[in-house]
Amino acid sequence: MAVNPLPLPDFQAIDGIRLGVARAGIKSPDRDDLVVMEIAEGSEAAAVFTRNAFRAAPVILAERSLANSRPRYLLINTGNANAGTGQQGMADAESCCRALSDAGGAQPDQVLPFSTGVIGEPLPVERIQNAIPEALSALSPSGWQRAASAIMTTDTLPKGATRKLVIDGDPVSISGISKGAGMIRPNMATMLAFMATDAAVPRDQFQSLVAEAAEASFNRITVDGDTSTNDACVGVATGQSHARVLDGKDRVIPALRDAIHDVFRELAQAIVRDAEGATRFVTVRVERARTEAEALKVAFAVAESPLVKTALYAADPNWGRILAAVGRAGLEDLDVSRIDVFLDDVCIVQDGGRSPTYTEADGQAVMDGAEPCIRIVLGRGQAAERVWTCDFSHEYVTINAEYRT
Amino acid sequence: MAVNPLPLPDFQAIDGIRLGVARAGIKSPDRDDLVVMEIAEGSEAAAVFTRNAFRAAPVILAERSLANSRPRYLLINTGNANAGTGQQGMADAESCCRALSDAGGAQPDQVLPFSTGVIGEPLPVERIQNAIPEALSALSPSGWQRAASAIMTTDTLPKGATRKLVIDGDPVSISGISKGAGMIRPNMATMLAFMATDAAVPRDQFQSLVAEAAEASFNRITVDGDTSTNDACVGVATGQSHARVLDGKDRVIPALRDAIHDVFRELAQAIVRDAEGATRFVTVRVERARTEAEALKVAFAVAESPLVKTALYAADPNWGRILAAVGRAGLEDLDVSRIDVFLDDVCIVQDGGRSPTYTEADGQAVMDGAEPCIRIVLGRGQAAERVWTCDFSHEYVTINAEYRT
Repeated sequence: MAVNPLPLPDFQAIDGIRLGVARAGIKSPDRDDLVVMEIAEGSEAAAVFTRNAFRAAPVILAERSLANSRPRYLLINTGNANAGTGQQGMADAESCCRALSDAGGAQPDQVLPFSTGVIGEPLPVERIQNAIPEALSALSPSGWQRAASAIMTTDTLPKGATRKLVIDGDPVSISGISKGAGMIRPNMATMLAFMATDAAVPRDQFQSLVAEAAEASFNRITVDGDTSTNDACVGVATGQSHARVLDGKDRVIPALRDAIHDVFRELAQAIVRDAEGATRFVTVRVERARTEAEALKVAFAVAESPLVKTALYAADPNWGRILAAVGRAGLEDLDVSRIDVFLDDVCIVQDGGRSPTYTEADGQAVMDGAEPCIRIVLGRGQAAERVWTCDFSHEYVTINAEYRT
Repeated sequence: MAVNPLPLPDFQAIDGIRLGVARAGIKSPDRDDLVVMEIAEGSEAAAVFTRNAFRAAPVILAERSLANSRPRYLLINTGNANAGTGQQGMADAESCCRALSDAGGAQPDQVLPFSTGVIGEPLPVERIQNAIPEALSALSPSGWQRAASAIMTTDTLPKGATRKLVIDGDPVSISGISKGAGMIRPNMATMLAFMATDAAVPRDQFQSLVAEAAEASFNRITVDGDTSTNDACVGVATGQSHARVLDGKDRVIPALRDAIHDVFRELAQAIVRDAEGATRFVTVRVERARTEAEALKVAFAVAESPLVKTALYAADPNWGRILAAVGRAGLEDLDVSRIDVFLDDVCIVQDGGRSPTYTEADGQAVMDGAEPCIRIVLGRGQAAERVWTCDFSHEYVTINAEYRT
């Protein structure tokens, strides 16, 4: 049911990265649910985590470990979020990390844990520990594809993106995977995304780059406005490519920055395309705002309005609902008589009222497509922003009324 | 489909108030869609209006007229919101008011217009003007019941509340009606509510009382988080009762204040009970917050979470989704390990994790009821607040995917 999903790419292998998948039987016995990513020594890692105050145990532990040491392994499970599990949840996450660090020859804080799935159930530690040897023995540079499927929860499709570029004759590769379909309104990161490159990017620049790319991608999508307790987005730079990736002022060169942004955006959009019950992939673009912050406020108000989203489901060019959402976004002294709204290139609202050139047929044609763009021109400044969202369907209600704790 | 709706009461007639209903054929020919409320000279009126920046023409006009003069008539139509209609919408609202003021012997700004229905369509001025004589000839002190039905849009049931109290031997009566089922997240008022009393409350005290009662009632409900462009809540005090309603310090006496609060709360809750697609009436109560503002923030985050609402639809005691919503409500340095959550009296979360005493059977029993209460105890202060909401059902999607501009 996903909306125009891209096929999973032929992932570029990343020198210094190997992935192994196992079946731990966390929630059901017959599916891949455990992923180990091995990271070569000397790599840099950077991450952003959810800002939900209810952060899951693995999020707390991963952030702490990352501050103290250079990770050698990521340990990712699906089927159980290890969230809302209190002190026991922390101890469980630590036990799993220790099992991997013992088996793999690393310190416990060199293993970063990531969990996704049901909230509030105890993590099945033994089952995870027992499956770690299987995951280690499966480690392979070409493990991306199987890993992309193994981290899914309510996703209907695996999600990945990859790029190869050549910098002054030296090749650089980037690969990434993500998961998520519901409880999606990332705040500094999305549900789970993992990206690796062989580029040699120093720690500070890499952290900035990952944070900036996550901001422009995962922090610009919303399915239901519900920020997850387990969001995490991790980047690894193994440095095994010899390409020179910094310019004379120690800044990451634009070609690499752009490629990493592209990978993140593709991964983030893949989540919206596969959002629970989605039948449309919608871009909400807000232009001529005073600040980017207020453009975002308006964009999210529209993108999360249940009335706008059910109208999108019905392919209904319902500009009244769009205006009502803009009007409640909380902008100071908004002059509504300066606002224009477009569906793709069709002007539907001009100067705050129905456009004289608008015809229902034109609006309907845009809405009948799978990827309409709602463009709102506020006419009060020069800032612009955009977010990606989906419609709100019967299927969303069915999925979330049936997915039980 | 409404959740435990109260039957429409036997309205107390209010001395100084008469209501007349007519069929103007605004949207369909065969239903009551126009209401005139006649207000005796010497009455005080008070109102609160939507804070949506896209305010409909009648909202703008009613607020302006109310500031300039004492209203003699309210003119209420359903079937057309006269919103997003620009300058023409203002002119149309004024034309309708003038027709009523001419026919009824008043100044144009003594008529307050209220419209509800489809956004963005021109108001059928002539049809409304033509029906005004019919409404005037139907004026009656007992017109409340028919008026309650005539102001409905997607409501399935008319909504009303009434009270009679005796103050030092003098009777005082209060009656009110409201409408609304979707686009409900009032901001200073709800879709439409009209209340009248024969109490003699001076203007300043009456405005404070109406604003305060609206804040505690209509501003505490949410169906879909979408603030309407047309919200308005109006109170009229005709002063024809001889009861002494002010105390020695010119404050409204508690008995009257409480009765007006009761009427407003009943009208507000009636909207949630009849919310689009609702199968459950849910109270979200937040206790031991630092401030009422932060208690409200948490309450609305939970009450508007699509994931919480779909879980409520499924009668699923899904505390993970409740915690996730609390966690993203944006409270500073929230210590999640101090949070308890109750379903009615069943403790489901203790100290931020699953309560050791909790059993699925206990939680399920509460959720199977039609009116569960979610009580969240933050453990960081003494402030409390509560809001009322409903679940999110297939029917909501059906209704809003089919209700076309």
